[in-house]
Amino acid sequence: MTNQFFASGHLRRIALNATTHRHRVVIVGAGFGGLEAARRLGGEEVDVTIIDRSNHHVFQPLLYQVAGAALDISQIAWPIRHVLHRFKNVTTLMAEVNGVDVAARTVLLTDDSRIPYDTLVLATGSTHAYFGHDEWAQYAPGLKTLGDALSIRQHLLTIFEQAEREPDPDKRQTLQTIVVIGAGATGVELACTIAELAHEEMPGEFRHIDTRTARVIVVEAAPRVLSGFPETLADYALRTMERLGVTVLLNHPVTECRADGVVCKDQYIGAGAIFWAAGVRASPAAQWLNVPADKAGRVKVERDLSVPAHTEIFVVGDAALLEQENGKPVPGLAPAAKQEGRYVAEVIKTRLRNRAPPRPFRYRNYGNLSTIGKHTAVVDFGKVTLRGRIAWGIWAVAHIYFLIGVRNRLLVALNWFWLYIKGERAARIIISRKT
Amino acid sequence: MTNQFFASGHLRRIALNATTHRHRVVIVGAGFGGLEAARRLGGEEVDVTIIDRSNHHVFQPLLYQVAGAALDISQIAWPIRHVLHRFKNVTTLMAEVNGVDVAARTVLLTDDSRIPYDTLVLATGSTHAYFGHDEWAQYAPGLKTLGDALSIRQHLLTIFEQAEREPDPDKRQTLQTIVVIGAGATGVELACTIAELAHEEMPGEFRHIDTRTARVIVVEAAPRVLSGFPETLADYALRTMERLGVTVLLNHPVTECRADGVVCKDQYIGAGAIFWAAGVRASPAAQWLNVPADKAGRVKVERDLSVPAHTEIFVVGDAALLEQENGKPVPGLAPAAKQEGRYVAEVIKTRLRNRAPPRPFRYRNYGNLSTIGKHTAVVDFGKVTLRGRIAWGIWAVAHIYFLIGVRNRLLVALNWFWLYIKGERAARIIISRKT
Repeated sequence: MTNQFFASGHLRRIALNATTHRHRVVIVGAGFGGLEAARRLGGEEVDVTIIDRSNHHVFQPLLYQVAGAALDISQIAWPIRHVLHRFKNVTTLMAEVNGVDVAARTVLLTDDSRIPYDTLVLATGSTHAYFGHDEWAQYAPGLKTLGDALSIRQHLLTIFEQAEREPDPDKRQTLQTIVVIGAGATGVELACTIAELAHEEMPGEFRHIDTRTARVIVVEAAPRVLSGFPETLADYALRTMERLGVTVLLNHPVTECRADGVVCKDQYIGAGAIFWAAGVRASPAAQWLNVPADKAGRVKVERDLSVPAHTEIFVVGDAALLEQENGKPVPGLAPAAKQEGRYVAEVIKTRLRNRAPPRPFRYRNYGNLSTIGKHTAVVDFGKVTLRGRIAWGIWAVAHIYFLIGVRNRLLVALNWFWLYIKGERAARIIISRKT
Repeated sequence: MTNQFFASGHLRRIALNATTHRHRVVIVGAGFGGLEAARRLGGEEVDVTIIDRSNHHVFQPLLYQVAGAALDISQIAWPIRHVLHRFKNVTTLMAEVNGVDVAARTVLLTDDSRIPYDTLVLATGSTHAYFGHDEWAQYAPGLKTLGDALSIRQHLLTIFEQAEREPDPDKRQTLQTIVVIGAGATGVELACTIAELAHEEMPGEFRHIDTRTARVIVVEAAPRVLSGFPETLADYALRTMERLGVTVLLNHPVTECRADGVVCKDQYIGAGAIFWAAGVRASPAAQWLNVPADKAGRVKVERDLSVPAHTEIFVVGDAALLEQENGKPVPGLAPAAKQEGRYVAEVIKTRLRNRAPPRPFRYRNYGNLSTIGKHTAVVDFGKVTLRGRIAWGIWAVAHIYFLIGVRNRLLVALNWFWLYIKGERAARIIISRKT
């Protein structure tokens, strides 16, 4: 019995400290990976602390629907401590981590307090990457958090209100031009939901503008949309987007973002709103640990998702880089993060029980989905691909199924049903702290 | 045929301008009064413009449920332009008004643009009054808008998160002390929903604090709670509040609000959160018009709700002061504002049709309701009073009935059903623009 855990001296430490504490697992981040690890360790003989800077877990694949005012925040977010409250060995902390003292086995918080660990799971996710142009962030916000989604929603709804009051026809048209940078799944989904809002749901509510003339432009550096999907699905997606009234500019790398528009391929596009869906960068986990990372900032992990030379530290989800047998990295998708969180919990459990470790992690691809507007989707199962209404049906069922909690499933289903039947979005509310 | 309208020279103006425009009604404010006036003028031979600084109408009687994280924003708010979109003669503008040029018959906006009117309806509502201590506003926010409700929710949820991380037991207890200033309907409803959240719904989710020990204190200058209700109902409400674990301090006028607590009757109460429900002041409509107002800032209106010497200007809702036959003013309640909005629309319609004006406005009191926690309420029908579960049932049906739109009625009903059955609040989400 020479598993890594024993070899790393953990068990000895546990035996020594038996009178003072149980084995302590600290999980940083309550996204799909971190939350799944915490759940799988719930009820085990181990003290788990999960730390997140927000109080809620977000179902990120539906964030674009909050941005597009189709869903309200509580329908895709849940208080972390509520999700985990039945596991008495799990403590939830709302706090911001800004470092790890690897030698002292301690997580450092921004308020200078420290949380000791025996095993650390970093599930810190990713953030937007502006290709070295961080100053673009102020003009072209991205979509990663609930706060982002609400900002985008506010901005989006506000430009139409401004256009309604704008006497100058040119300015009116510019205000009603929305540029989405990036034609990956997020960019496509966001652009389509905005186009439907403007072209199908809002006409008839304004008196001085015709929102059917609003322009939604997707700007993409690559020669195709949905690079993560097979080419036939991407072609289908492109045609569907154009039918929804979305203009797609391929081979158009953005060279400048400004307050009033973007420059791409020597062309200036004036816009009332610019949204960023072009790239992500891993959170600073690699810097905290001072370990090698790829250029996207992802920590190169071992086959058991532990950090090289630190068997007591694991990285899961978007912050981790693990090559699969086919040479491609495990994708930065919710199901992958979830599978990794579950796997790490399994590794920790086998170590605690002094059993042989599980086989190396293997990502199981159950299919990659993306919607294109509210009636169609593309699904890539690897060998089989689907598109159109049937694919949308699969997407809807899969997403509602994976939403946590019966209540939210029901409410989301109802909201969607209403949106599709009546074309009325639930959440078209501009909130200001003043009004 | 010498109605006021004709006498004021309006009809002549209309005749003169017949080739250029129809009669123009401008409504400022889309609360209960303004929105009702706009709806009742929908489809008439008149151009209506309704101006509000937010894009949504709020069902204010349920704001405290948003503050208490039981309802999400889209369940009690609707885009004004969506509510009114089928009336082609009604234009919705999201803009902020900061004055009226009575002589030029023009409404002034903060962006220096001007909206001309032939008839003006001011439905600008009320805001918090801090009895001359406006500096208290930063420490003790009030509850009038969606933004207020979200701020209160954020603050409320955050103090428990902070307490969970606070090592000092005294500071922990202070953080978990919530003071509500004012024991009118808003104060009672807010305090009870906070007590239930802390004492019934959150215990079991924290590891270092026991939220059942959280203190909810209502501080009231008067010798009783619910001054708008008969004394027997107030006594019942007080007993119910105490049973819910709310401490009520009567005859305790607040003399100071600070960041860390309040001083009342020479007693200092340290608190993690302070909320203001003690008084309201009318919006500056009287200043805009330069007409007499009472000390709460309400415009003294004629029996037809017009402003003395300005038959073309009406004031409705919380901004208006009209004495009833019993000597009491029409109360600042949603049903009163709605009745006034409808009445003013009626007056305008009779003037347009050159008919005799309707009889003077008379407020019909269909009952005054307030909940005390999630299972009891008090209802005052004037001659009959009700309390307890039956009253709560009446309250719930009345409120769901008056919510605009079938969809929201259904969703609110579902959310409540879930809250009562499972004790799970939908909206316990702390949003930050950063996370």
